[in-house]
Amino acid sequence: MTTRPLAAIILAAGQGTRMKSETHKVLHPIAGKPMLHHLLDTVDSIGVERTVVVVGARREQIEASVADRQVDIAVQEDQLGTGHAVAQAHDALEGFAGDVLILYGDVPMVSAATMERMIARLNDGTDPRAVVLGFRPNDAGAYGRIIADDQGEIARMVEYKDANDAERAVNLCNSGLMAVRSTDLFILLDQISNDNAAGEYYLPDIVMLPGQHSAVIEVDEPAEVAGVNSRSELAAVEAEWQARRREQAMADGVTLIAPETVWFSHDTAVSSDVVIEPNVIFGPGVSIASGATIFGHSHIEGATIGAGAKAGPFARLRPGAVLEEGAKIGNFVEMKKAVLGKGAKASHLTYLGDAEVGEGANIGAGTITCNYDGYFKYKTTIGKGAFIGSNSALVAPVNIGDGAIVGAGATVTKDVKAGDLALVRPEQTAKKGWADRFNAVSAKKKAGK
Amino acid sequence: MTTRPLAAIILAAGQGTRMKSETHKVLHPIAGKPMLHHLLDTVDSIGVERTVVVVGARREQIEASVADRQVDIAVQEDQLGTGHAVAQAHDALEGFAGDVLILYGDVPMVSAATMERMIARLNDGTDPRAVVLGFRPNDAGAYGRIIADDQGEIARMVEYKDANDAERAVNLCNSGLMAVRSTDLFILLDQISNDNAAGEYYLPDIVMLPGQHSAVIEVDEPAEVAGVNSRSELAAVEAEWQARRREQAMADGVTLIAPETVWFSHDTAVSSDVVIEPNVIFGPGVSIASGATIFGHSHIEGATIGAGAKAGPFARLRPGAVLEEGAKIGNFVEMKKAVLGKGAKASHLTYLGDAEVGEGANIGAGTITCNYDGYFKYKTTIGKGAFIGSNSALVAPVNIGDGAIVGAGATVTKDVKAGDLALVRPEQTAKKGWADRFNAVSAKKKAGK
Amino acid sequence: MTTRPLAAIILAAGQGTRMKSETHKVLHPIAGKPMLHHLLDTVDSIGVERTVVVVGARREQIEASVADRQVDIAVQEDQLGTGHAVAQAHDALEGFAGDVLILYGDVPMVSAATMERMIARLNDGTDPRAVVLGFRPNDAGAYGRIIADDQGEIARMVEYKDANDAERAVNLCNSGLMAVRSTDLFILLDQISNDNAAGEYYLPDIVMLPGQHSAVIEVDEPAEVAGVNSRSELAAVEAEWQARRREQAMADGVTLIAPETVWFSHDTAVSSDVVIEPNVIFGPGVSIASGATIFGHSHIEGATIGAGAKAGPFARLRPGAVLEEGAKIGNFVEMKKAVLGKGAKASHLTYLGDAEVGEGANIGAGTITCNYDGYFKYKTTIGKGAFIGSNSALVAPVNIGDGAIVGAGATVTKDVKAGDLALVRPEQTAKKGWADRFNAVSAKKKAGK
Repeated sequence: MTTRPLAAIILAAGQGTRMKSETHKVLHPIAGKPMLHHLLDTVDSIGVERTVVVVGARREQIEASVADRQVDIAVQEDQLGTGHAVAQAHDALEGFAGDVLILYGDVPMVSAATMERMIARLNDGTDPRAVVLGFRPNDAGAYGRIIADDQGEIARMVEYKDANDAERAVNLCNSGLMAVRSTDLFILLDQISNDNAAGEYYLPDIVMLPGQHSAVIEVDEPAEVAGVNSRSELAAVEAEWQARRREQAMADGVTLIAPETVWFSHDTAVSSDVVIEPNVIFGPGVSIASGATIFGHSHIEGATIGAGAKAGPFARLRPGAVLEEGAKIGNFVEMKKAVLGKGAKASHLTYLGDAEVGEGANIGAGTITCNYDGYFKYKTTIGKGAFIGSNSALVAPVNIGDGAIVGAGATVTKDVKAGDLALVRPEQTAKKGWADRFNAVSAKKKAGK
Repeated sequence: MTTRPLAAIILAAGQGTRMKSETHKVLHPIAGKPMLHHLLDTVDSIGVERTVVVVGARREQIEASVADRQVDIAVQEDQLGTGHAVAQAHDALEGFAGDVLILYGDVPMVSAATMERMIARLNDGTDPRAVVLGFRPNDAGAYGRIIADDQGEIARMVEYKDANDAERAVNLCNSGLMAVRSTDLFILLDQISNDNAAGEYYLPDIVMLPGQHSAVIEVDEPAEVAGVNSRSELAAVEAEWQARRREQAMADGVTLIAPETVWFSHDTAVSSDVVIEPNVIFGPGVSIASGATIFGHSHIEGATIGAGAKAGPFARLRPGAVLEEGAKIGNFVEMKKAVLGKGAKASHLTYLGDAEVGEGANIGAGTITCNYDGYFKYKTTIGKGAFIGSNSALVAPVNIGDGAIVGAGATVTKDVKAGDLALVRPEQTAKKGWADRFNAVSAKKKAGK
Repeated sequence: MTTRPLAAIILAAGQGTRMKSETHKVLHPIAGKPMLHHLLDTVDSIGVERTVVVVGARREQIEASVADRQVDIAVQEDQLGTGHAVAQAHDALEGFAGDVLILYGDVPMVSAATMERMIARLNDGTDPRAVVLGFRPNDAGAYGRIIADDQGEIARMVEYKDANDAERAVNLCNSGLMAVRSTDLFILLDQISNDNAAGEYYLPDIVMLPGQHSAVIEVDEPAEVAGVNSRSELAAVEAEWQARRREQAMADGVTLIAPETVWFSHDTAVSSDVVIEPNVIFGPGVSIASGATIFGHSHIEGATIGAGAKAGPFARLRPGAVLEEGAKIGNFVEMKKAVLGKGAKASHLTYLGDAEVGEGANIGAGTITCNYDGYFKYKTTIGKGAFIGSNSALVAPVNIGDGAIVGAGATVTKDVKAGDLALVRPEQTAKKGWADRFNAVSAKKKAGK
């Protein structure tokens, strides 16, 4: 960690036309978290003190998205190039003296380690004016090239279209990311011109201004600087993120039978000896303790899953779902804001919402907690060792006592005391031969069609 | 587009033995549409006037499949080679004068653009006798090679086994597809012989008959001429189709979190800013308006999904399902021939069949429309702003008025008027201590086992 | 098949630290069967008479796992190398005279054919002392190299770190598997030393002992000798197994729309003309007859699916589920120990447990067999052509007669006679205007918040 103060400027003023979206490009999520917030979390993690997001179109979306964070907004009214965009951060950084990272909202996967390496290079004593982050892609294609010596001192940076054959043969490319001292940055930006075909001020032009040299460091993993300009590139970055996360889970002792079919969220926490079957989707806020099994075709979000608990197949756990140790959720069962006590079971076709189920209780197939009256939500409490018969509706607020039994098919509107049996069931009546007559008539009618 | 009349001959007389199927090979589907119909739709799209399908074994399956289309059937009684197969179309094309495309029922992905380029080459003034469609596979393997000059004028076409080293080094291969003038085709076919090891008449032999030259054009994308002879090749063509469709969806502004796990149908229509989570299967007849979200693990067929509507996870929409603007279908919910009005919700464990649900209505968990009596189907109508309590059965035909409430657990057999509350619920009774006694006895009995 | 007696020694004494698991490494499953049992089944299939598993840490897990099999256990108390491990089998093989295969519990995919080729080579008359199984990986990396002549006679076996450039250029690598005569094996093991950096006895050292030559044969498919040391390698072997199984299914005439999303179990049996949609997970014990369709998002285990039957989407079949010919299980339906008769249907949101459903019966949406009272399970029988109305609970033990009808919403506790209609339903009552008043009050209350 450097000890000089750090700031970050994140450019997010682009139109993002190729996304074809009403949503600002940098707010599209990777692993359930907006790209911009991936960057914000990373700069936070390395101790950046001041962060300026440069916005343009749809700035109100960005402002709303960062309302809860310590972030300054700078507005770029006209799109006059990256150099111009960075310059808009000038006022927001008034009074700041330290090192500045220049990042891009649509290049969200840069790691903390890489950012720290950029800063370290800026302060390594060789006194570069700027540190540029370079990368070596499999196919350098039309990326701008960086011509540098063994020490990373930059001789030239050339756009592909301006490059000669020897320069094109170099595969060290410019990611656009930079580290510069705050005391230099805005002075340098004042010196670049827009005397080019597009009439724009290009940030990379500060590198080759007369005076100090600039340096390049190479990113270890080119995927870190992958940019997102289309939904296809968004999917590619998501895929790369997921692939790394899956390998990490397996290294941590998690069995993924088909790793490519498990989608983690940015914050999923999974312990060792958890088994995850194919086709499991995790939303935010999930933690899973050791020895738990998540069966296939499950959708898990905001859930806390205890040691040895089992969920699925076809489990739907929503925020506030808690499976205590050894609890079991079966197929076609949904939980929301509900706790299933130690060893308790809800095995089939059930909805547990705003509910608390005691240790060892058994929730029969087709049980529904009626937690909503169209306006407000109410709570259901089920005691330890209680047994809810199948196809029951528990109309909240309602309390089922410890060890109580609710007979199948009941609509329970009054509390059931511990140890009691509750029945809500009319008499069964038989209409003799009625089905035979109905079938005879109906079959004839149908045939007559 | 050419202005000369167009015809197509589609060969579909093969046995398809490697498919190991009771179904005719060309009727196996890609993206939910039989291979043969992919070709028929493509030839229709370029204005082909007459289409002849040459059939052999299992001809009745093909006849049934094209019964609704303008297609002539020609029968190849004996399997005497591709030349012989094409010759069977002679009578069906009686009186037709124009250009003829020769296609294969098991090579279903040839694009309209490619077909048009074949026809255009036939009429480009250089007067070729036939235009052969060539392709350059990654691995030319044992395909027949085409030796041609820069203008595409064919010098030789050789089977791999007959090719010398220089010829094998050429990677331009013969797809078998051709364009020929109708006035030439059958005359040429009369001239080829079956004087070869297999005793068959080979269509490609017309290319090298004395007289006019023939020309080759190259398909842009070799995948267009992939043939299907086994289920594995069927899966490969499906995969290729899906990959292209997914890229198209993303280019259109659709977010696919895991593109490789979304399966489109041949006719799926998806607007921009739709988000599709992993593991969604589309059957035919689906359209999705802008801003809608399809959560993971869903199965959607014949459904119309309005702007901003949400479906899933675990949604099953069947033909006739309509989600109006902002409507919401949750988990383990099935809809069939049912309209869910603007902003209405059916969030959990519900079956809506033959139903109409008004704007803003709330369908509780476990609600079932009882639309079937074993012989006929009946309709359920639910008014605007109505609230159906959980675990209710609505026995159709039945009408629930605007703003009405059905209490939880009801089996509704009579209409409910607007603004009324309907209750179908017996008294709840308690058997004091019964559960305690039952548990004591049962536990002992179980232990005694 | 050789006619000499065969034995196998399977090494399973490693710690498996990288698995980060409480479960012994060789008990982690591939395709639902523990790695060790894959090997045990393969050696059984080639007629191995005596199998010795050499165990160390967590031996009790292995002993429990093989308790039902004809397997001897030998204990390696200290981890002194592979040579030492094999030597522990000495006593267990007392009195055995024949050929011995040396296998590894964490190299589970070696085929019967490969094992037989090893034995055949040992007995081909050239009299090798040992037959080593070699493989040629895409990237030979740091594997030990085998230097051998055209006949497979081994000149040297060298560890990568000890190999010179010429040896490293050889890509024939040592899998560690061997075949040796029982009469030689333990004598050879006595001759090797632990005079090396690790102080271990290395099994491969027996190859280069003075005297007879040893031979190498090459495995056809390097994937057969892939080892499993981490969850990531476990997933890789699973993926390889599944890929081969899917290709086999397609070759057998099964349509897999997206092969990469169907997970077979080690014993899944699927007939021709079965169609399997994307995202189907098979557990053990499944057989599917011709013409059946498994729709997407299904989870099938221990089920027997008859000709032309249909299951899914979202079907959950558990052990003992039987679909007879043409039967149909729809979405969100679970079956366990239940038979669905010829042409019978359970289309939506149903649980059939411990049940027998007659031919042509129709089980309405939301039907639940209440088979469990918290202690014991009971059976439900439904007759031919019976019709169970939606949202019914059948409280077992109970019998519904042939052709009987159960009205919707019933909780059936008494038998229903054939041809009768059973109703369990209170009167429907209306509270006039109650909903209007409730809505008015609640809306105000909510707004007041």
